[in-house]
Amino acid sequence: MSLLVTGVGELLTNDPEHGVGAVGRRHDAALVIEDGRVVWVGDARRAPAADDFHDVEGRAVIPGLVDSHTHLVFAGDRADEFAARLEGRPYDGGGIWTTVAATRAASDDELRHATRERRHQLARSGVTYVEAKSGYGLSVSDEARLVELSGEVADEVTFLGAHVVPEEYRTRREEYVTLVSTEMLGRVPGAHWIDVFCDAGAFSVEEAREILLAGRAAGKGLRLHTNQLADLGGARLAAELAVASADHLTYVSDEDLGALGDAEVVATLLPGAEFSTRSPYPDARRFRERGVVVALATDCNPGTSYITSMTLVIALAVRECHMSVDEAIWSASAGGARALRRNDVGSLRVGSRADLAILDAPRVTHLAYRPGAPLVHALYRRGVREF
Amino acid sequence: MSLLVTGVGELLTNDPEHGVGAVGRRHDAALVIEDGRVVWVGDARRAPAADDFHDVEGRAVIPGLVDSHTHLVFAGDRADEFAARLEGRPYDGGGIWTTVAATRAASDDELRHATRERRHQLARSGVTYVEAKSGYGLSVSDEARLVELSGEVADEVTFLGAHVVPEEYRTRREEYVTLVSTEMLGRVPGAHWIDVFCDAGAFSVEEAREILLAGRAAGKGLRLHTNQLADLGGARLAAELAVASADHLTYVSDEDLGALGDAEVVATLLPGAEFSTRSPYPDARRFRERGVVVALATDCNPGTSYITSMTLVIALAVRECHMSVDEAIWSASAGGARALRRNDVGSLRVGSRADLAILDAPRVTHLAYRPGAPLVHALYRRGVREF
Repeated sequence: MSLLVTGVGELLTNDPEHGVGAVGRRHDAALVIEDGRVVWVGDARRAPAADDFHDVEGRAVIPGLVDSHTHLVFAGDRADEFAARLEGRPYDGGGIWTTVAATRAASDDELRHATRERRHQLARSGVTYVEAKSGYGLSVSDEARLVELSGEVADEVTFLGAHVVPEEYRTRREEYVTLVSTEMLGRVPGAHWIDVFCDAGAFSVEEAREILLAGRAAGKGLRLHTNQLADLGGARLAAELAVASADHLTYVSDEDLGALGDAEVVATLLPGAEFSTRSPYPDARRFRERGVVVALATDCNPGTSYITSMTLVIALAVRECHMSVDEAIWSASAGGARALRRNDVGSLRVGSRADLAILDAPRVTHLAYRPGAPLVHALYRRGVREF
Repeated sequence: MSLLVTGVGELLTNDPEHGVGAVGRRHDAALVIEDGRVVWVGDARRAPAADDFHDVEGRAVIPGLVDSHTHLVFAGDRADEFAARLEGRPYDGGGIWTTVAATRAASDDELRHATRERRHQLARSGVTYVEAKSGYGLSVSDEARLVELSGEVADEVTFLGAHVVPEEYRTRREEYVTLVSTEMLGRVPGAHWIDVFCDAGAFSVEEAREILLAGRAAGKGLRLHTNQLADLGGARLAAELAVASADHLTYVSDEDLGALGDAEVVATLLPGAEFSTRSPYPDARRFRERGVVVALATDCNPGTSYITSMTLVIALAVRECHMSVDEAIWSASAGGARALRRNDVGSLRVGSRADLAILDAPRVTHLAYRPGAPLVHALYRRGVREF
């Protein structure tokens, strides 16, 4: 069965033939889907026949968004911590430990239910491809469980046993680094990626290097949370190891940006975290000028960015990070795909996965112009309509 | 038929007995609705019997939000103008004239359809009571038509013939001021309020005074758009005339704030406009400290704030305007009611209109903590469930 999607007022293809960051805009376009793939893209008047058709009546269509950085599997919330932080009140509620304790205590089905609801909200905001990290287990069995549960809802799973040093190991942190790098790593066969939070209060550059190299030896791809709270040298480590993506980079030097660009490390910016922690937003122009490819993601997590709307992330990036609307959409789709080293998602060219979002708007600009509006009219994932 | 809404994990009543700005928080609460009114509020364990019940299973409940400043009736969009502005590119697309031309050209049914969709989006974000302004007609017949169409979807209608001086009167602005104050005013019996945009590029303080006094003589309540772009003295005029609400106040002196407080003028802040124009956000603490009651509204309009989500406005106010979550929710409900001089909406006490939003969250804090998430689970308006 082939499907013709036609009447597309504005289509972004992100076809890489136009270069990095170019959205490949078409008007009055159509595309044909077969077996979950795009098999034809072009002018609506020249579209070939298909078994079925969907006339989107002038709406804009974008590649399904790629959320390449989430902590989707957790229990409980930290609303009080959020309110205290934003209101400038002191708060000593346990921070991440609150989430680790609630997550450890939750049943698999409780976690599944909460995670699926968040995954559904992401889909409503146009997301068709999702990465999810473990990191609220912090024991061998809990991390193994979270990686497994992440795999039930996410397209790619990242092992983040090195999120923070758990309380039980506070005085024996080298033991925990070894545990993550050996036994814990051996129990997460479902993880495609390994990640470390290399920042103030988390893991040092040396610890991060040890863990990432163990992950690489075990066949995992590398990612790094770094330079969110301070510049401890994590960005340089990301360049040294040529990780797929360095995430956050709220505080990063021009020199390190140059090194990241040279090493083809994608910078994943997470403006939801800056929103929710009232931190300074990164300026995407600095990244571009130094040749760094930028991805945008939600960082969905209960502590610092409880955000399940990629369209809001796009609007924040335009308002706060000096990205054009096209750049923000590209970074939230093709950029995320690059951060996950995928070339089959995040674009709509012949051969791409038929992942696309049909907007309730004639122009993609509306994604930033109408922040908070429910603009995703319909979503196709692998050629199947989700809603 | 009476209805018991029970199992409320957290209830904000905004009961004025607690004072201005106090949310009147209750836990494990219930309320009883009869004939579209709240007839009982209290502890769930002590709730009286009713004909029917709705167990909200621990969810938080707030008074229906009051959007006291919208330009809901218009045709077309200005997405390109938005993108150019946010991207720092020059743009000469006609600004407000684009909207006036599109609105004049649209049929009543086209305007109805677009306006109802926006009204529906507001409801999805928790809004149960809406003000809407004319102002994209700018001729006697077009303003009369927009006031009438506004009345079909809005609870209160404001006549804003003095939005800008229309092109046809550019060299005869006194004639236009007279037209608004006489013939046009006489053709808008459905308008409860009269408003003027008193700012750079719009109407002067003297012109605004003339128009508002004519409106007062015709029995309209007074409101004023002012100090959004510059401080031309409009805030002082608002205090002098003791208008119900002075809206925007992006640029306002401490002295004028004191005068507004003394005159019991509500300050309606519209952070969506600052978001969409990349302007500095007002600091609500300055208003509070000078005794000014603050309302929050969307300012939904196609030029400077195409926002239909009051929950996003609440989140922006917390992030950017130094409001606590409670203050922002109060201002978006009871504050809006005060800006419209209503004491039957914006609160949930005995006698209030049974307008309430049931959240998909255990705590109201989630409205700011999870920006962009679809958190309104159900909505009652005059005791009738809308969704």
